[in-house]
Amino acid sequence: MSAAAIPIEYADASREVRAVYDDIMATRKTDWINNFWKVLAHDPATLRRMWANVKEVMAPGALDPMTKELIYIAVSVTNGCRYCIASHGAGATAKGMTPAQHAELLAVIGLANETNRFAVALDMPIDERFR
Amino acid sequence: MSAAAIPIEYADASREVRAVYDDIMATRKTDWINNFWKVLAHDPATLRRMWANVKEVMAPGALDPMTKELIYIAVSVTNGCRYCIASHGAGATAKGMTPAQHAELLAVIGLANETNRFAVALDMPIDERFR
Amino acid sequence: MSAAAIPIEYADASREVRAVYDDIMATRKTDWINNFWKVLAHDPATLRRMWANVKEVMAPGALDPMTKELIYIAVSVTNGCRYCIASHGAGATAKGMTPAQHAELLAVIGLANETNRFAVALDMPIDERFR
Amino acid sequence: MSAAAIPIEYADASREVRAVYDDIMATRKTDWINNFWKVLAHDPATLRRMWANVKEVMAPGALDPMTKELIYIAVSVTNGCRYCIASHGAGATAKGMTPAQHAELLAVIGLANETNRFAVALDMPIDERFR
Amino acid sequence: MSAAAIPIEYADASREVRAVYDDIMATRKTDWINNFWKVLAHDPATLRRMWANVKEVMAPGALDPMTKELIYIAVSVTNGCRYCIASHGAGATAKGMTPAQHAELLAVIGLANETNRFAVALDMPIDERFR
Amino acid sequence: MSAAAIPIEYADASREVRAVYDDIMATRKTDWINNFWKVLAHDPATLRRMWANVKEVMAPGALDPMTKELIYIAVSVTNGCRYCIASHGAGATAKGMTPAQHAELLAVIGLANETNRFAVALDMPIDERFR
Repeated sequence: MSAAAIPIEYADASREVRAVYDDIMATRKTDWINNFWKVLAHDPATLRRMWANVKEVMAPGALDPMTKELIYIAVSVTNGCRYCIASHGAGATAKGMTPAQHAELLAVIGLANETNRFAVALDMPIDERFR
Repeated sequence: MSAAAIPIEYADASREVRAVYDDIMATRKTDWINNFWKVLAHDPATLRRMWANVKEVMAPGALDPMTKELIYIAVSVTNGCRYCIASHGAGATAKGMTPAQHAELLAVIGLANETNRFAVALDMPIDERFR
Repeated sequence: MSAAAIPIEYADASREVRAVYDDIMATRKTDWINNFWKVLAHDPATLRRMWANVKEVMAPGALDPMTKELIYIAVSVTNGCRYCIASHGAGATAKGMTPAQHAELLAVIGLANETNRFAVALDMPIDERFR
Repeated sequence: MSAAAIPIEYADASREVRAVYDDIMATRKTDWINNFWKVLAHDPATLRRMWANVKEVMAPGALDPMTKELIYIAVSVTNGCRYCIASHGAGATAKGMTPAQHAELLAVIGLANETNRFAVALDMPIDERFR
Repeated sequence: MSAAAIPIEYADASREVRAVYDDIMATRKTDWINNFWKVLAHDPATLRRMWANVKEVMAPGALDPMTKELIYIAVSVTNGCRYCIASHGAGATAKGMTPAQHAELLAVIGLANETNRFAVALDMPIDERFR
Repeated sequence: MSAAAIPIEYADASREVRAVYDDIMATRKTDWINNFWKVLAHDPATLRRMWANVKEVMAPGALDPMTKELIYIAVSVTNGCRYCIASHGAGATAKGMTPAQHAELLAVIGLANETNRFAVALDMPIDERFR
């Protein structure tokens, strides 16, 4: 399974893969592709589908891009995904996350994981006002 | 274990518990206490400690309160905590979350859970630029 | 899938299933079988295998039975398994867990879930002394 | 995000951070601080808050300290937190956990994770006696 | 948050939503839509995107549709998602899953969750042959 | 805790451990033992019990061995267990998993993790037809 994890560089990529790489770089206004995409490139159909999803979901909309990165990090920390924490941590930093914001992000993530366990352990009844 | 989950109403609460309830209502500018606290009240030391943590962590700071609620929901959905999703969903709505923001929140949470699994399954090497 | 979840009562059970039920009641010195086993009974091979595992692992040994129940609850709360929290909560209570011990159990479970997220989010390097 | 994970040594710490370090060492009767705290020290408010929580929750009480470490490990293994398994494994060993106890701890953790999945998959109805 | 969970019936759906419903029914050769889609319909963009993903990923390919349902169930049980276990359990049954296959599926899911915890707890080194 | 993770080679193993190793090699028709078993060997009772379970559950039955490996991988990816993903990825490859099947396996695992979160977040009501 690990063999698949070797990143495919632009120079070695097929025309189909290069088209996705080009769109990633154009959308992100960068000349660089991170390993997530270069590893997915072993399966071009998934590369294409996943990029289409990320491009649509992470675009500016009702929530600003930095908030979306913070939400992404909250999920990634809760799942324990090191790669995702590193890549979206970098993404949030690039979008302007300050050390103080980072510290508060972690405080909320930690606290939510703690209180979640109390709510489950005590089988808390959902308040009528929340329905 | 379930017996502990019966909420303790203000009228039936000890002086120690009422002091926490009073501070919750004063801090939140409301006359209402949700079940999370009323169930925790069976253990006043935990009630006091947990409220002190929530009060400090969820206060306005480098991140605004609504963003903190969104992060809380992201953790709660990923952990599958129904009570927490309901209570912090209500909290975010009270702070102004629109249906469009809610929709985007869920889209990011879902997508992050999906891409997390690809990153783990393929044991993605962390890019040098992310270190 | 839900159809399989109807518990099989002793009176309706096959000889093979009754033999496991009898051993559960003899081992636990009770005349009662909880639903976990009655639902597993739809698949006698799994019923037999799972009971053999529980009987061996949960027997008194280097750790006392109450401590084993607390560990079981810690896992069940972290996984969010309502049935397991209820059944092992009852088991711990039957073995003498006091309300004060229950309160401390939950406090440790909650705190561990919180600190786990900080350790993962900050990719804490393991201290040499811990190796 | 990874940059924040460099541990801050006592010699380089602010007065506020040193006060927490001093209290950790005094409470634990040791002259050593593990990386968890040295990394948290980048955010002194969280360092102070988290240590206050750990100090209160992990103190001897209705449950003895070794039992609390076992519960901590059960959560950490279920969450897959390597740092936490290493640090609380060392903590339990320091408090007297024998290899036989360690082996039984892992057996219970593994079994609980297995049976949790059966209970969820078959949507086991909670027995009346457990309510 | 719960208010959003009311399913939108075909008769009440917008033209855009009906187009997705029609494609779901045509693809699945049925005249029925399950609640997952009817609830997602509150957010037509997500409904469209998610159905496009499910349609592409769950189509017959290198893996047959029944195997894909089993994999889906394994994820859903591990995540503790009741709705997903029920819907994909029904899906697998419709595709021919026998009670014996269902029993073996659960046995593998349970065992994998157990052994996963041992591998993590003991920080097993990955064998050279697996790289 | 990490000290226990040193694999015990056949030459250094007790008679009891060698008997399990011999049965693993005979059952798998190989002359090689992977680290999972060599690390478990520090606790012979668990080694014996766990191997008995794996041997029974993973044997050919109503589901073929390759399908069982795919289910195992789905659980391991969802739990984020690197060792388990590597070992069962190798197992599936040895049983004939093609790169195209691997790609579809990951696509289903990722998608299931995404849709699970939507179902939980929106508290989807289980359809009558699924009961």
